[in-house]
Amino acid sequence: MTARPKQLFIHPIRITWGDCDPAKIAYTGNIPGWALDAINAWWEEHLGEGWYQMELDLNVGTPFVRLEMDFRSPITPRHRLLCHVWPERLGKTSITFRVDGEQDDTLCFEGRFTCVFIEARAFRKQPPPKQIRDVLLPLLPDSGQS
Amino acid sequence: MTARPKQLFIHPIRITWGDCDPAKIAYTGNIPGWALDAINAWWEEHLGEGWYQMELDLNVGTPFVRLEMDFRSPITPRHRLLCHVWPERLGKTSITFRVDGEQDDTLCFEGRFTCVFIEARAFRKQPPPKQIRDVLLPLLPDSGQS
Amino acid sequence: MTARPKQLFIHPIRITWGDCDPAKIAYTGNIPGWALDAINAWWEEHLGEGWYQMELDLNVGTPFVRLEMDFRSPITPRHRLLCHVWPERLGKTSITFRVDGEQDDTLCFEGRFTCVFIEARAFRKQPPPKQIRDVLLPLLPDSGQS
Amino acid sequence: MTARPKQLFIHPIRITWGDCDPAKIAYTGNIPGWALDAINAWWEEHLGEGWYQMELDLNVGTPFVRLEMDFRSPITPRHRLLCHVWPERLGKTSITFRVDGEQDDTLCFEGRFTCVFIEARAFRKQPPPKQIRDVLLPLLPDSGQS
Repeated sequence: MTARPKQLFIHPIRITWGDCDPAKIAYTGNIPGWALDAINAWWEEHLGEGWYQMELDLNVGTPFVRLEMDFRSPITPRHRLLCHVWPERLGKTSITFRVDGEQDDTLCFEGRFTCVFIEARAFRKQPPPKQIRDVLLPLLPDSGQS
Repeated sequence: MTARPKQLFIHPIRITWGDCDPAKIAYTGNIPGWALDAINAWWEEHLGEGWYQMELDLNVGTPFVRLEMDFRSPITPRHRLLCHVWPERLGKTSITFRVDGEQDDTLCFEGRFTCVFIEARAFRKQPPPKQIRDVLLPLLPDSGQS
Repeated sequence: MTARPKQLFIHPIRITWGDCDPAKIAYTGNIPGWALDAINAWWEEHLGEGWYQMELDLNVGTPFVRLEMDFRSPITPRHRLLCHVWPERLGKTSITFRVDGEQDDTLCFEGRFTCVFIEARAFRKQPPPKQIRDVLLPLLPDSGQS
Repeated sequence: MTARPKQLFIHPIRITWGDCDPAKIAYTGNIPGWALDAINAWWEEHLGEGWYQMELDLNVGTPFVRLEMDFRSPITPRHRLLCHVWPERLGKTSITFRVDGEQDDTLCFEGRFTCVFIEARAFRKQPPPKQIRDVLLPLLPDSGQS
């Protein structure tokens, strides 16, 4: 997958006993949700609000249309899971995020997640509003600023 | 806790690998959600609709105000979890359900769950609408019919 | 993605209120876990045992190394989610499953999931044991039997 | 329930979009798991290790035998959920924790959780090992030190 930008957002996640299966590693079914939590935290950090406020206050939804994840190494509670998040590509009505998960300097997963922008109450596709474009544009890999 | 009525609703739940923790038994944090799934299934069976339709179509919410659970025996994927559900007490604006979970004829947990009836869109307490009272009344332990 | 075989396994899932987010549709983070539940149920049906028994009784693990999902239409509690599961490709030490989720004859998601076979206690890659190959071989698309 | 001690441990939890149901508040089925996460974090803070390490490294398990929760006010993503955790009572082979959840200075839930100490590999009840008693004793309400 594409190289990580130098400056990027890291969202730490505390993995616990209950996240693990009898193989003593995090159950695969839990991992996509952590990547989504990291993307939501990315919005909190960069836009000032997460999905809940985007949807209810700004009337902007970003439903997922695709995700893919490669699992490279098991995740355990022995280290925090550091999720590196960055926007990879802004389409006309979509945004693709990359999320890499690391523990103790070992890559645990690489993922790519594509969302479309919608007018939330109408559930109708739309280009991202200016407020959101202004946040995204300087952070995209080809902007020369990330 | 109170004795189970003779005729009652049983909701089977398939326990899986991912529900278990490294002790090879279902993680405690997952169990309350299964009891809630069983109560929702009880509504589907007796009212014809679960919480989603009650809230969105009938404007009736039933938020939980209390739950208590005693864990008697571990839950594993080796047997289906049979959740026995029955209404125990109808208050003026509340309903208390009992849920017993069993696997292979062994009691795994006993639980008691109290919800209040609300007008969903106003989030305001109300007595249960007639349609719901009519479903509940014949099923209560002191009705002589359960 | 590849066409579904004619005869295939369908695993129904009951979607509930608690699975939905404030947009009134199933939260994306929950969906990969349902596809995994469907794959586990496929093993239960075809091998007679799910992951828990495979791991603990047969010493065979099948950790995921990759998943990809395309989300085509929202999932709600108004219909059962029917998960169509079939093995798509058997590698030397891996197996790829396809899972399609449908509600009310509408395709909700398409997914592809790749697992490797391991000796569970050693966490070491291995070819699938004969007992498992014998189950898989007749069900693969190119076997002319599915 | 009993009064909170003056000095106590607070575990913050980030509530998100995906934790909420269509009523726009956290789904009840998710809440017990957060209280458990807070208790696990309490162990991490006071013993230096959470349940995973206690079980696998120290051979000490603490399965839950009872939980009760009163839900006082809805939980939303608009504020961090602050979970106040303290041990309430140490029995011969059991420990009872209290967990209060607050958002924006409003009490959201009060809970009480009882675990038994076991020798993890044998799944056999035991008194808490000295290392754990030494951590717990000064923090109990009747020790005059909390």
